[in-house]
Order: sequence, then C-alpha cells, then structure tokens
Amino acid sequence: SKWRVWGREDVRRTLKRRDPFSHKGSFGTGLLVAGSDEMPGCAILAGSAAMRVGIGKLMIGTTKYAASIVSPRLPEATYWQINHQSGEALRLPEGADAVAVGPGIADADFIERFLTEIWPKEIPLVLDAGALHPRNWTKRKAPTVITPHPGEMARLTGLKVEEIQRNRIKVASDFAVRNGMIVVLKGKDTVIALPDGTGFVNLTGNPGLAKGGSGDALTGMILGLVASEPDPVAAVANAVYLHGLCADELLEEESERAIMAGDISATIGRVLRSLAETEENGSY
Amino acid sequence: SKWRVWGREDVRRTLKRRDPFSHKGSFGTGLLVAGSDEMPGCAILAGSAAMRVGIGKLMIGTTKYAASIVSPRLPEATYWQINHQSGEALRLPEGADAVAVGPGIADADFIERFLTEIWPKEIPLVLDAGALHPRNWTKRKAPTVITPHPGEMARLTGLKVEEIQRNRIKVASDFAVRNGMIVVLKGKDTVIALPDGTGFVNLTGNPGLAKGGSGDALTGMILGLVASEPDPVAAVANAVYLHGLCADELLEEESERAIMAGDISATIGRVLRSLAETEENGSY
Amino acid sequence: SKWRVWGREDVRRTLKRRDPFSHKGSFGTGLLVAGSDEMPGCAILAGSAAMRVGIGKLMIGTTKYAASIVSPRLPEATYWQINHQSGEALRLPEGADAVAVGPGIADADFIERFLTEIWPKEIPLVLDAGALHPRNWTKRKAPTVITPHPGEMARLTGLKVEEIQRNRIKVASDFAVRNGMIVVLKGKDTVIALPDGTGFVNLTGNPGLAKGGSGDALTGMILGLVASEPDPVAAVANAVYLHGLCADELLEEESERAIMAGDISATIGRVLRSLAETEENGSY
Amino acid sequence: SKWRVWGREDVRRTLKRRDPFSHKGSFGTGLLVAGSDEMPGCAILAGSAAMRVGIGKLMIGTTKYAASIVSPRLPEATYWQINHQSGEALRLPEGADAVAVGPGIADADFIERFLTEIWPKEIPLVLDAGALHPRNWTKRKAPTVITPHPGEMARLTGLKVEEIQRNRIKVASDFAVRNGMIVVLKGKDTVIALPDGTGFVNLTGNPGLAKGGSGDALTGMILGLVASEPDPVAAVANAVYLHGLCADELLEEESERAIMAGDISATIGRVLRSLAETEENGSY
Ligand SMILES: Nc1ncnc2c1ncn2[C@@H]1O[C@H](COP(=O)(O)O)[C@@H](O)[C@H]1O
Ligand SMILES: Nc1ncnc2c1ncn2[C@@H]1O[C@H](COP(=O)(O)O)[C@@H](O)[C@H]1O
Ligand SMILES: Nc1ncnc2c1ncn2[C@@H]1O[C@H](COP(=O)(O)O)[C@@H](O)[C@H]1O
Ligand SMILES: Nc1ncnc2c1ncn2[C@@H]1O[C@H](COP(=O)(O)O)[C@@H](O)[C@H]1O
Ligand SMILES: [Mg+2]
Ligand SMILES: [Mg+2]
Ligand SMILES: [Mg+2]
Ligand SMILES: [Mg+2]
Repeated sequence: SKWRVWGREDVRRTLKRRDPFSHKGSFGTGLLVAGSDEMPGCAILAGSAAMRVGIGKLMIGTTKYAASIVSPRLPEATYWQINHQSGEALRLPEGADAVAVGPGIADADFIERFLTEIWPKEIPLVLDAGALHPRNWTKRKAPTVITPHPGEMARLTGLKVEEIQRNRIKVASDFAVRNGMIVVLKGKDTVIALPDGTGFVNLTGNPGLAKGGSGDALTGMILGLVASEPDPVAAVANAVYLHGLCADELLEEESERAIMAGDISATIGRVLRSLAETEENGSY
Repeated sequence: SKWRVWGREDVRRTLKRRDPFSHKGSFGTGLLVAGSDEMPGCAILAGSAAMRVGIGKLMIGTTKYAASIVSPRLPEATYWQINHQSGEALRLPEGADAVAVGPGIADADFIERFLTEIWPKEIPLVLDAGALHPRNWTKRKAPTVITPHPGEMARLTGLKVEEIQRNRIKVASDFAVRNGMIVVLKGKDTVIALPDGTGFVNLTGNPGLAKGGSGDALTGMILGLVASEPDPVAAVANAVYLHGLCADELLEEESERAIMAGDISATIGRVLRSLAETEENGSY
Repeated sequence: SKWRVWGREDVRRTLKRRDPFSHKGSFGTGLLVAGSDEMPGCAILAGSAAMRVGIGKLMIGTTKYAASIVSPRLPEATYWQINHQSGEALRLPEGADAVAVGPGIADADFIERFLTEIWPKEIPLVLDAGALHPRNWTKRKAPTVITPHPGEMARLTGLKVEEIQRNRIKVASDFAVRNGMIVVLKGKDTVIALPDGTGFVNLTGNPGLAKGGSGDALTGMILGLVASEPDPVAAVANAVYLHGLCADELLEEESERAIMAGDISATIGRVLRSLAETEENGSY
Repeated sequence: SKWRVWGREDVRRTLKRRDPFSHKGSFGTGLLVAGSDEMPGCAILAGSAAMRVGIGKLMIGTTKYAASIVSPRLPEATYWQINHQSGEALRLPEGADAVAVGPGIADADFIERFLTEIWPKEIPLVLDAGALHPRNWTKRKAPTVITPHPGEMARLTGLKVEEIQRNRIKVASDFAVRNGMIVVLKGKDTVIALPDGTGFVNLTGNPGLAKGGSGDALTGMILGLVASEPDPVAAVANAVYLHGLCADELLEEESERAIMAGDISATIGRVLRSLAETEENGSY
C-alpha cells in the first residue's frame, strides 16, 4: 500500500554520512524565525535542535529582546533582530537554504508579512505554531512542510479535533494533496502525509513529549535536516523519527514526567551514534 | 488514627502513569506567579520543578526584568510580564488549571491585588512565601494549599516559632480545619494537614535542604502535580515526598552542604524512574 | 612550634556536621559585595562557592547590570542592587552574619564608602581584591580576614613581591599581628596568619588555580564557612584547604591548563563527600 | 623535506608542563576582540577555548550588548566594552601579552581602526574572520597569525577557492613568506605555513567541525597558547592539533552531526589529560 511505517532501517538507508572533505557550506544555512518577547525560549529549543542534527549554519530571526535570551544558550548561531511591530518592509537576510517560521510567534500581522515575502522564494519552508492559520495557500515550487498538532489542524481545516483524531491519515493526506504540502500531523503515531497521496506513520516517541516546547524541537530538527539533506521527504520523516527516538532514549535515565524539551537536542548526538554504530562506514 | 506517614507505597499507589495517547493538554496548565527584581531566581527554581514533575504547560508571571533572567534557563515556559507597581487591574492570562503565587515576591500590594483577583476563581491555588501574610481568608471551593516554614506559620498564626515547633501537627491541623486549606508546615518531618482534620507526616529530606531556594522548588513541585494529577491531596503529599527524596538521592554523589536548590529539579527524573522501575506497567 | 600544616585531619575534626533539625537560618546569612560592569562574573564565582560550602542564605550586592548577569547562574541568591557612583549613603541590607567585599570591584570610592559603613559592625568581614588597598586599618572586634595574592600583599605593605615571597610566613604574620587580622597570603603553599602570631600553611592546590577567577572562588568559600561555622579560624583554614582540594580532585578528570574557576564550586560537593565517607557519623 | 605532519609526539615534546610555583601572571594575559550585536556568541566560543588551553587571564573586548551575553557564560574573564560606531580613538586596555581579533565582527571600519592601533605593538596578533580582508600588510616584529578558511583565503589573495584547494600548501606558504605571517589555512588537513617557507599539516579533526562556530574555538585556542607558551610556532600548531583532537574525542560519545562548537572547549581538559597520562612527569 502507499502508506507505511517509517522505521529504523529507513533512517539508516537515507540519512547521509558526512563527507570527510565537507565544510560548513556543505550542510546548508537555515533561517529560523521564532520566538517573541512572551515566548523567547522557542528559539532556543528549535535552534539547538537544528544544530544538533547537523546543519552547517543557523541564522535566527527574532525580536531584539528574544535574541538577548537565546544567544547565551546558542552562541553558534547568528542573529537577525526583527521588530514585529515595524511597518517597514522586512529585509530578509541572504543565503538561507531553508526556512522555518512560527514557534513562539503570536503576532499574526508579522507572520502575514513574513509569509508574503518568503512564499515566492524557491527554498524549502517549514511552518509551525503561529504560522499555522487558515490562509489562501498557493502551491509553491520548493517543498513546504506544515507541522500541526491536532488543535492546529482543526484551526487549519475547520474540522473538530475529534474528527481529525478519528481519521488522522485521511485528514492529513487530503490537506497535503490539496495544498501540495508535506503535512506532519503530530501526536502519538505522528502522520507524515505527502503531496502525492502517500505517506508514513512514525512509532517512536512517548508521553514525555506531551509538554510545552516539544514541538519546537521537532520544527528545529526538520529545519536542520531539510537544510542539510538532499531529499526533503526523507529529511522530514527522519526528523520525526529521531525526535521520538530521543524521547525514548531519555527514558533510559529519567522519567516521562521529567523530560523537558531542552533535553531532546542534548540527546541527538547519542541517538545518532547508536544508529550508526553497527554500520561499517563511519558515523553520521 | 487519622494521621500517618506518607510513604513510598503511597506515592506508587497514587502517582499516575502517563496515558500513551496523552498530549500536553492532558497534564494541565500551571500559572506560576513568582520572582521580582530582587529575587528573580525563585521563578527559575519553582518553574523547573513544576516542569520536571510533569506539568503540561507552564506560564510564568513575573516582572519584565525577572522574565529576562528566568527565560534563558526555562525556554519551555511562556511569560506574562507583570508590572508590580502599576495601578491598572491585573489581566490574568487565560487557561490556567492551577496557580501558585509567592516565591520571591516582597511587594505586599501586588500580592493583595493578585489574591483579590484569583481568590474567587475555581482553580487550585498554592500560596507560599510573599503570599503568606495574615489575611481574612474566606473559604474557597477549589483546593487551597499554603506552604509555610515555621517562621511564616508564626506570621500567619501570631504564635511563636517555638510554640509551633512543639505542636507542629496540632498547629497545622487547626489552621487547616479553620480555613479549609491544605497546610504544608515545612521543616524536618514536614506536616501535611488537611481541612478534615487528618493529615500526613513526611520523612524524606535532609539538612541539605536548609538553604535559600529549597522552598521555591517545593512550591513548583506542588503546582506541577496539582495541575496534572486528579487528586490534590495526593498531589501535595507526593510533591513533599519527592522533594525530600531528591535531596536524599543527591547525597549519593555529593554532600548536604553542597546541595543547591537548583539541583533538586535536576534529580526528579532519576528519582521518579527509580520509583517506577520495580513496577510492571511502565514509567511515570 | 606555633606554625604548622593544616591538613585533612584538621578539616575532619573541625568541620561541623549538619544538625538534622537545622533550617536555613541555622547556617547564617552572607552578604557578598562583588562584581561590577567590567567584571560581573566574580560574583558568580564567589557566590556559587559560598553556597556550595553550605551557607544558609546568600545576598549579593552588586551593580544592576552585574545582577542581571549573575542571577541566571545563581537563582538561589537574593540581590541588592548597588549604584557605585551614587553619592547617597549606602543602605546596607539587614541580617548579614558575615560579609565579603572586593572581587571584581575596581571603584576605590565605592569601596571606601562601603568599608566606612561596615567597619564598625560586629560581624566577620572578608576583604579581597578591590578592597585590598593600603588604609589606616583600625582593629575590629569581629574577625577580619584579608586574602591577598603576593601582588596585593605588596600593595598593602609597600614591600616588593620578591621580598614577600622570600618571607611569606613572616610578612603575613607581621601584618596579621599588627592589624589584628587573619591574613591569607595566597599562592603555592598558602599561608594563613592569625592575629596571635601563630598560623597554618596549606598544601592542597595546583597550578590549575593559576588563572583568573580562582581567588574569587576562595573568597566565596571563606564567606560561606565563616557565616555557617562557629570558629572563624577553622572556617578560613578549611576554606583554603577545600579550595585547593577541589583543584586536586579536578585533575582526576581533566588537566591543569583546562581548570576554570567555575569548576571549583562544582567539585565541592564531591570533595566534601569523600572527606566524610570514612566517618561513622553522617555527611557534611 | 621542509614540510611535515605535526603529530602527537610534537605536542608532547613542545607543550609546557605548568611550573608548581606559577601564578596567573605566569600564563599571560590575552585580549580577545570578538563578537558583536549580531554575532555575540563568537566571543563565548573563542573565550572559553582560550581559557581551557591554559591562559592566565583573559580580557574580552566586545560591544556592551555582546558583553551582557558573554559574561554569564564566561565569568572568569574581564570585559572591555567597545562602541564600534564611536569616532573616538580606541583606548586599548593595558597588559595584553597576545591579541586575537575578528570572530563575529562584521564592521570593517572598526576593524580598520583597531588594526591601525594594534599593528605597531610588539605583541603576538591573531587575525580571523572579520579581520581577514585584503590590506596593505606591513611586516610586524611580533608573530602575526592569520586563520582563513578557503573562502577567506580567496578574499585575501584574490584567487578562486578551487585554485586554493588544489594547492593548499603552496598558496598558504606563498602568503606566509610574502607577508611574514603564520598562515593557518583551515579545512580538512589544515595547513600551517611559516614565514620561512616551511610548515606543517594537521591530520586531526573531522566533519563534525564543519559547522558555524568551530573556527571561533580555534582562534581562542591559538590565542590561549600563544599567550601562555614561549614558542609561537609550536603554540599555533598545538592549537590546531588539539582543536581537531577534541572533535575526534567527541565522537566517542556522540555523532559528527551533533557536535557543536561549544562542545570543543568542554573537551580540552579530557584531551590534554589523555595526552599527559603516559608521561612520567605530571599533567599539562
Ligand atoms: N503521547 C505522545 N506520544 C508520542 N509523541 C507525542 C505525544 N504527545 C506529544 N508528542 C509529540 O510531541 C510533540 C508535541 O508538539 P507540540 O504540541 O507542538 O508541542 C509532537 O512532536 C508530538 O508528536
Ligand atoms: N533539616 C531539614 N530536614 C528536612 N527538610 C528540610 C530541612 N530543612 C529544610 N527542609 C526543607 O526545605 C524546604 C525549605 O523551605 P524554605 O524555608 O521555604 O526555603 C522545605 O521543604 C523544608 O521542609
Ligand atoms: N601554583 C599554584 N599552586 C597552588 N595554588 C595556586 C597556585 N597558583 C594560584 N593558586 C591559588 O589560586 C588562587 C589565586 O587567587 P587570585 O590570584 O586572587 O586569583 C589562590 O587561592 C592561590 O593560592
Ligand atoms: N571536514 C573537516 N575536517 C576536518 N576539520 C574541519 C572540517 N571542516 C571544518 N573543519 C575545521 O573546522 C574549523 C572551521 O572554521 P570556520 O570555517 O572558520 O568556522 C577549522 O578549524 C577547520 O579546519
Ligand atoms: Mg507546537
Ligand atoms: Mg520559602
Ligand atoms: Mg584575586
Ligand atoms: Mg570562521
């Protein structure tokens, strides 16, 4: 059938080893637009996750205040300070190979202005949280990924959460096909629906992820893999798989209740290493 | 008798396992009102503790300055910036399932304004530190928890500390019955007195907790469990038990003198795991 | 003879076990006046050290800017924001059982104003770094401790560093006797000279401590033990011993070059535990 | 031949053990001019690296904003706040034994003003990133080190990246001889070209370093060793070797994708210890 589980062997088959001759330009530059004065931390969670899956360079677009909160925790990134309220045209930084927008942003006007700028550009785009509002989506050439939880999917589709949860695959798939997007419908057994009507289900993860911030980490991992990997579909599916696997790995040492979103990124290295270690040809 | 020790088996019997199909909405939203320009750190200590015991979402209400101190350490929370001095009505954020107020707040006027707003609402309320002043307490429908140390209990009751310490159970119980509150009288062998005249004594903990900030961590743990667990009495007793158990666990690797309040939250995951691991049905 | 090495058995004999019935008031309140806009970090280093040796409560007096740098790293402390430049009288916070002043403060005027206030008070006082300038020292009733390195001792005495280093015990002892102070003359084999002409030599420590910030950690450890222990002489000698022992313990896992002052406090718990563990009666 | 691999035995032969009688003055004072409002983190990465290789004292020159970001992470350093835009003459802090400039600085005017001041001074100078622009380099008496990646080398020489990569040793050597500099041409198999036409190739490191911020850590390590070691050539070669070795050591526990530049400094202690441990005479 056209739908199947995305599993460990899929990750090992698709996730690229790093070329010994590579440099930071080899792994793409991501632009993460996230965080605001009320929710500055989302950019820490998403940004750390993007870097830990192997992106080459990360630019974080956020408010001046949020940048001062994020940068001590993410010294490896560079910062583009955005004034959400300003009426001036947004001057996007150059050089991004992939963009993610939404975590920790409540300002609908700013989102609107940003999406208007970014939509026509031919780079992969990941939309989450504050960027997930009903809209007249026109199809894009470059891959577009949305990462709603059931509540956000309800907002996008007008359906009730219960209807969505009863038909997770169908609802996600319909939206993906109609809008030419990759839809990541989150929650237990996350659904990854592709524009061609096929898709995957993910089985990693646990209720330790049922906590504020987990979704931000996923958005960052998707951005990081989409920016650094050739195939965007595998990139998204691998991000979802690894995100859940980190939470499962954390249970070796602590409890579901205690897992915090910030722990996820800290686990990516160990998880990737354990995926690689039975391989003959090097590490991820 | 109506009073007994709350012990390991009580925790294991009452603390809920996380449903595999749960999401962050399943574990409640807590509002923590804590921290000020002089004592910003209290919100870090209480907030981390609330998240590590498994709350779904955490909102932190604090001053603008304190938010800038707390948020790099707690990126998983969202922030409600409060101007203590402002004469305007407080506009409480919506959606809280439980509220804790007091750690690191010295401003009596602000506390008064906040308690006036929150008192009539039908959500569990935890009062600590700056919120523990004599007051004409009217009984609330939803559970109300106070967490005085003996000095604060003296302030609340007008008794001397020595009188309180000589009759810890009686003093706590009288106050609990009279005011329809759960009284957590802290210190060695913390007393948990219930409005019906019964209660528990806790035996975990050690003098490593005799240090600034320990109480803030307890307030956070109570908030976290009250928000995410069905039974508020078990939630409070479990929080007290686990708080002490974390301090005891820390002695495996370090010394009482060296324990800092921030270490407590960092230990919750390990402690919960050790409580679960002889259980057949999964982790907490 | 009146001078001897202060060693492991001295620490074990004099360092107090924590009473099971103690509370944070049992271990004293320290006031640390340290850090400035140019050197905010000194208050992090000294403050963490004070807390890790077991002080009950810590107040940090520092500039508004420095408080914003220190508090995310030391949420367990409370803050007294000082305007160094202000002409107004300093309003010292109440309740301090011991005071340390100097690390990271270059402003001689402020130091002068602070010392003028604090000198007559009957509480132990530790002077370091910016507080170590020649002065007409009058004898105090409460213990006064100075912690110069040889360069600072030269500044205080008018002697050359070489003269001091050739006669470390004599120079320190003369100053201690003349001014009624405890003199901690730092460097390899730190000298602890007492007002009665006797004293100790410390043999712990290694060149990993030869790096910016190590002295700040020592000042914090002295403050922490003086505030929480009954005998100030043992408190000072134990602080010096433990400070060096932490550096020695760090060599188990890393290299002298790599030791940073911030690592010292992080090691205190382990070091105290190892000192206690062959004892029959509990931990420190 | 005049070119060879710089290897483990070279490090062990040249890297100095710390004299037991040393003090912080024995290991030099470094001035790191790095970081800006857009890229504050570079100073965290470079500064931590400088301290972890054993510098005595570190001064960080950066913007007021960046200082507020860096100092909570590097409390052991002191700060010189620079206004990049100001037209006034730069007043360099006194006492530096070595200077590094460039990471995280995009302001060409400021760089020009700083280089004009520093160029005539007889102290070793390390130029990276923002300080690597074509210029009329006059020869300096004290050692001058540049650390371009191939893209920066292209900017300096006018050559294409491909030409440089085809002739890494020749291109680096020509530039080193012509300008009397030590040229560290980064990337896989980093080339260290000396002013006399000889040089070394480094074989440590892996693609985990191909990520934003790695170069900043290298600049810091070079500054730290040049400030604290007698032979600048060995200092540079050892820094390059150790930088790569840290990345290799990190693969024991995590994956190339997940290595972040901040992890490098955290590994220096362990790496130095493993280099020392088969030696009879003490640690580094
Ligand atoms: N019960 C659960 N089992 C597995 N994954 C979950 C569970 N609850 C939440 N998650 C994951 O955690 C993340 C939550 O995202 P968000 O709701 O945006 O914070 C998503 O990746 C969900 O798939
Ligand atoms: N000697 C002790 N033994 C056990 N628990 C203690 C001891 N001293 C303090 N605590 C606990 O530490 C916390 C101190 O709260 P607070 O005084 O508000 O900071 C409370 O939970 C006390 O029960
Ligand atoms: N070579 C060394 N051996 C032992 N301790 C040292 C050595 N160098 C410095 N220290 C200690 O490190 C601290 C330095 O203080 P300061 O110079 O104020 O930063 C003091 O406690 C010194 O005794
Ligand atoms: N593929 C690679 N193998 C070994 N070292 C690398 C590799 N890519 C980058 N590096 C090192 O990482 C650092 C990157 O510096 P920069 O480009 O300035 O951030 C330099 O020290 C490079 O030598
Ligand atoms: Mg989300
Ligand atoms: Mg309290
Ligand atoms: Mg000093
Ligand atoms: Mg670079």
